[in-house]
Amino acid sequence: MESVPPTAGMIVIGDEILSGRTQDTNTHYLARFLGAFGIDLKEARVVPDVEAEIIAAVNALRSRYDYVFTTGGIGPTHDDITAGAIAHAFEVPIDYNAEALALLASRYKGGELNDMRKRMARIPAGATLIHNSVSAAPGFQIENVFVMAGVPLIMHAMLENIAPRLRRGKPVHTRTLSTAVAEGRIAASLAAIQAAHPSVSIGSYPYFNENGVGVNVVVRGRNPQDVEAATDRIQEALMAQEIGSKPDDR
Amino acid sequence: MESVPPTAGMIVIGDEILSGRTQDTNTHYLARFLGAFGIDLKEARVVPDVEAEIIAAVNALRSRYDYVFTTGGIGPTHDDITAGAIAHAFEVPIDYNAEALALLASRYKGGELNDMRKRMARIPAGATLIHNSVSAAPGFQIENVFVMAGVPLIMHAMLENIAPRLRRGKPVHTRTLSTAVAEGRIAASLAAIQAAHPSVSIGSYPYFNENGVGVNVVVRGRNPQDVEAATDRIQEALMAQEIGSKPDDR
Repeated sequence: MESVPPTAGMIVIGDEILSGRTQDTNTHYLARFLGAFGIDLKEARVVPDVEAEIIAAVNALRSRYDYVFTTGGIGPTHDDITAGAIAHAFEVPIDYNAEALALLASRYKGGELNDMRKRMARIPAGATLIHNSVSAAPGFQIENVFVMAGVPLIMHAMLENIAPRLRRGKPVHTRTLSTAVAEGRIAASLAAIQAAHPSVSIGSYPYFNENGVGVNVVVRGRNPQDVEAATDRIQEALMAQEIGSKPDDR
Repeated sequence: MESVPPTAGMIVIGDEILSGRTQDTNTHYLARFLGAFGIDLKEARVVPDVEAEIIAAVNALRSRYDYVFTTGGIGPTHDDITAGAIAHAFEVPIDYNAEALALLASRYKGGELNDMRKRMARIPAGATLIHNSVSAAPGFQIENVFVMAGVPLIMHAMLENIAPRLRRGKPVHTRTLSTAVAEGRIAASLAAIQAAHPSVSIGSYPYFNENGVGVNVVVRGRNPQDVEAATDRIQEALMAQEIGSKPDDR
């Protein structure tokens, strides 16, 4: 019997995402990163810089998924409230962490380690640090929750540090077929093939852009043979439709 | 007394976002769109193509915010399950909608309106259609929930159709100051200014990119005078720090 793949949830913390100031790219990066580990990202949430909202999201997701990843809110400024919120979510104290203080002290010399910067060393009790090669300030892991920076470059570096801690799942195999045949013409075939191949997931993604109209059909599954078999059947269905078809939408 | 600004939640529906295949841009677009209407986007969630997950997210958000927007899952293929899920969430029947069928019939001639395409005319009872100029298939509004396509071009067109239905809030004024001064050097000043100006929200967003290191300080608020006053104070604090400062991170 095969082991169940690990699951994950993502929490993006930051007013700047919800105000439209910043396009979140961390969720997409995490999804691809976890994909390479065979870990299924099941849900993502964007919450504002409001402690109660962070606590609610963390508690909802950490009981539900094997891993929870958060980004944002661990810097030195007043709007960086994630560490305190996580401590409250786990109902543990938070205080200056000696290892984190040492990291900051090695980075900020000669009085540069002011009180606000020291806030970045406040870590909930029982957490272990997440190091990164870009900035001195660490993230932290508490139980199954990984708390990371929001700056993409730092978040990426933190994921490298986290990687060895993650249980891997069987990888997902993906095949993509592109066609200019309208989605509505192949929909019945896709439904029949999906029904006949329940071990794979078939997604149909139309696009409308400056290059025209088309569909990407994506087959995903953990058994490579099943993915290939379903892909072959879809390819046959597409070829049958492409003969004499005309560009059309949906 | 001023009226309370309208609030909104966003639900992105689609396995392709969670698998890392597709970078969601609809949330960002919606955030900016709503910003222009003075509507506050309070939360966003990404859920998979799983009916129970869609229902849970819709019911959680529609009771909490003035408006809920969904994108994805209203096309003709087997993985397009949003309309049925919304009907279940509202506990109303779903059937072919005459107006939607007429739209599709005008687009798909001579037998092209097959059974799978007809699925795009299945609309929950009590909903009103959301038209768009790109494809024939409509979205729909049921109570305070707006159900839109996932394809960005279509989603954008649907928002144009929705716009007249939305109650506007007082607009948010935003001022952004950029500095190469390290975030940790200005953090104490920002905290003091935030405390002295509770009617505005001050965000501090460091960046680390190929151009170097810096911080964008963003002041947001519904009272322009308050935003200007806080911005002036931050500008003074930045100028005081910039004298003799050196590039540094966090």
